[in-house]
Amino acid sequence: MSEKRLKNRVCIVGTGLTKFGNHFDKSYEDLLSEASVTAIKDAGIDRNRIDAAWLGTAFPDAGVYKGRSGMDLAEPLGLFDIPVTRVSNYCATGADAIRGAVNSLLAGESDVALAVGVEKLRDRPPQESIVKMMVEMGHPFYQKGFTAPGTFAMYARRHFIKNGVTPDDLADISVKNHSNAFLNPGAHYRKEITRQEVLESVMVADPLHVLDSCPTTDGAAAVVMVRAEDAGRFSGTPVWLKAIELSVSTGWDLPYFDSSYDFLSFRATKVAAKKAYREAGITDPVKQIDLAEVHDCFSIVELLSYEDLGFCPPGKGKVLLRSGATRRNGEIPVNVSGGLLSCGHPVGATGVRMVCEVAGHLRGTVGKRQIPGAKTGLTHTIGGPGAVASVIILGNEP
Amino acid sequence: MSEKRLKNRVCIVGTGLTKFGNHFDKSYEDLLSEASVTAIKDAGIDRNRIDAAWLGTAFPDAGVYKGRSGMDLAEPLGLFDIPVTRVSNYCATGADAIRGAVNSLLAGESDVALAVGVEKLRDRPPQESIVKMMVEMGHPFYQKGFTAPGTFAMYARRHFIKNGVTPDDLADISVKNHSNAFLNPGAHYRKEITRQEVLESVMVADPLHVLDSCPTTDGAAAVVMVRAEDAGRFSGTPVWLKAIELSVSTGWDLPYFDSSYDFLSFRATKVAAKKAYREAGITDPVKQIDLAEVHDCFSIVELLSYEDLGFCPPGKGKVLLRSGATRRNGEIPVNVSGGLLSCGHPVGATGVRMVCEVAGHLRGTVGKRQIPGAKTGLTHTIGGPGAVASVIILGNEP
Repeated sequence: MSEKRLKNRVCIVGTGLTKFGNHFDKSYEDLLSEASVTAIKDAGIDRNRIDAAWLGTAFPDAGVYKGRSGMDLAEPLGLFDIPVTRVSNYCATGADAIRGAVNSLLAGESDVALAVGVEKLRDRPPQESIVKMMVEMGHPFYQKGFTAPGTFAMYARRHFIKNGVTPDDLADISVKNHSNAFLNPGAHYRKEITRQEVLESVMVADPLHVLDSCPTTDGAAAVVMVRAEDAGRFSGTPVWLKAIELSVSTGWDLPYFDSSYDFLSFRATKVAAKKAYREAGITDPVKQIDLAEVHDCFSIVELLSYEDLGFCPPGKGKVLLRSGATRRNGEIPVNVSGGLLSCGHPVGATGVRMVCEVAGHLRGTVGKRQIPGAKTGLTHTIGGPGAVASVIILGNEP
Repeated sequence: MSEKRLKNRVCIVGTGLTKFGNHFDKSYEDLLSEASVTAIKDAGIDRNRIDAAWLGTAFPDAGVYKGRSGMDLAEPLGLFDIPVTRVSNYCATGADAIRGAVNSLLAGESDVALAVGVEKLRDRPPQESIVKMMVEMGHPFYQKGFTAPGTFAMYARRHFIKNGVTPDDLADISVKNHSNAFLNPGAHYRKEITRQEVLESVMVADPLHVLDSCPTTDGAAAVVMVRAEDAGRFSGTPVWLKAIELSVSTGWDLPYFDSSYDFLSFRATKVAAKKAYREAGITDPVKQIDLAEVHDCFSIVELLSYEDLGFCPPGKGKVLLRSGATRRNGEIPVNVSGGLLSCGHPVGATGVRMVCEVAGHLRGTVGKRQIPGAKTGLTHTIGGPGAVASVIILGNEP
């Protein structure tokens, strides 16, 4: 059996993003096209050179009923007569779209691959809310109140009890990310907030306030990729893929069948990070990684992911947070973009947006929020009830 | 840029199928597990050797609300700590799951890959019918009556007018496939029917009767694949992949924007077939292919696909049909399994079922319906409004 060798074999040569926010004036196709065309232009590539594409949309039926198949990407872009696939994998959907493109390039199926994530969630379906719709359609866990805020609130509560994390710590993550978003014109919310404002905001699922939670957002993100040996043929500044890992662990059933489960960490993140670090040669993430986009769908998830990603030992997330290491000027800035908490979370787009963000820092093109001299960056998503995680590591040289 | 070389580089070493039909007594997970465990056992492989997996489910919300992410495959099988992806691409979903696994193997991401298609459609959602649900959720075309039967009926009508196809021809396709299914214990319907019965059955969308239409069905299918050089390590008799092509063309918008479109053929099938034949070295499909599983969601689709797949010249599908060449004992038997018309069409499962069927003939394991001496076989799916097609070619030697 062969040993996987991915490192430095694929490059991102183009990235494209829409603003994340309310896009009542733009269709799903508008968003998808804007991001894709930006990425294609950035790569300096003729659209007709794209010979395979991936569409990441997680919840067509929760949004505008688009994104059920590759056709919904092919049609607005006129990408015909090539394979176009739609993947969905909860919040890891965008990262998994990128992974599909990487495998295709390395298999030799394609030479220029496009991966796009898009989600349009602000135009509500007739049922008015995603949760209401899921309940009506018979989703067994949503019917029991096992929603995203409800699930992640349990993790927060356990971190309070077990690790001495406080509501102030959670609020400070949201404060940090909103402060970062102030410098990101693409973020949904660009308003600095205070700890007090977080703590006084509406409680969604105790102890998670609404300002501990990412907003519902429309947006799209795209990347164009080629094999590393072809990167020199295009004008887009290449960013090298050092590792891309997706890992799945058990989900909804876990709390019911594994009584030893501690509700403190996500195995999927830990496995994906471990594999990605091995592939990329990362032995000390805090020292070797210059910035990280971490899945902060709720403030607690950023904090526990510090631990799962090995930025600090288990139980020490609050120590890392309080040290300021994850601030913009810290040792390992986390969510310089503003994260999901400020950018919002158009589910399929998020993983791709993170890669665009990190690539921007590695290329030195993100303006005021630039992490000076960034050479290596990481993206992380965790989806479903903590069951599906992705870790991608990028560098600005081979 | 590199030239794609797929031929003979990947082998199927295990296949597994549930019976297709009404499975009110089995869950989505039961079906998925039954097919997967059968394939894994058939491969003679330890389940823990699987290091990547794909789940093909096209319509979670039209069925039992399962299959939104790779988690729904990982959990029932206990396939943890590996990448598991869900793909959906209309009726090409199952074939695209296989393609994901092939790319992963060739990229060196995985060494043993599982691709599973499953759909459980007979347990209705609260909205009672898929079409009713889609209309309620705001699907723009379904709201205008542009349903699957409505769409394909237009193709039938055009073939009547342009090519002299008759209702008898369409009925005869259904008669042929039902006759084949009589020998297939896995088919949903195993009852021989007459031309008269088809013509007297309820009209769904003129000229398509209910017996011109595939039933709504539950089922699952799975394949285990490895790189060809590793096939000898497992006890499952290998079947070599000669080509796998997915091609996307324009869909719903086409009738509105391309006034020259003739509603006689599907470009996606033609492109996928052309590429697959080139890859596999097929110059005369009727002579070189020993059996074909062709997407007969409606009888007309099998007939027009004869033309799109190059089994006969354009407009000559009726001639090929009337010659008997596509019967079980003909020159190029089509849908020896009974096709979608008799097996039913659990959407995500269909493309994988077809591959299991062809692999069965190539391995000589399908009993009474065996095509004697079959060495090369083809599978074909066409999805959405004719926008997404797959063609896979398999052989029993390298």
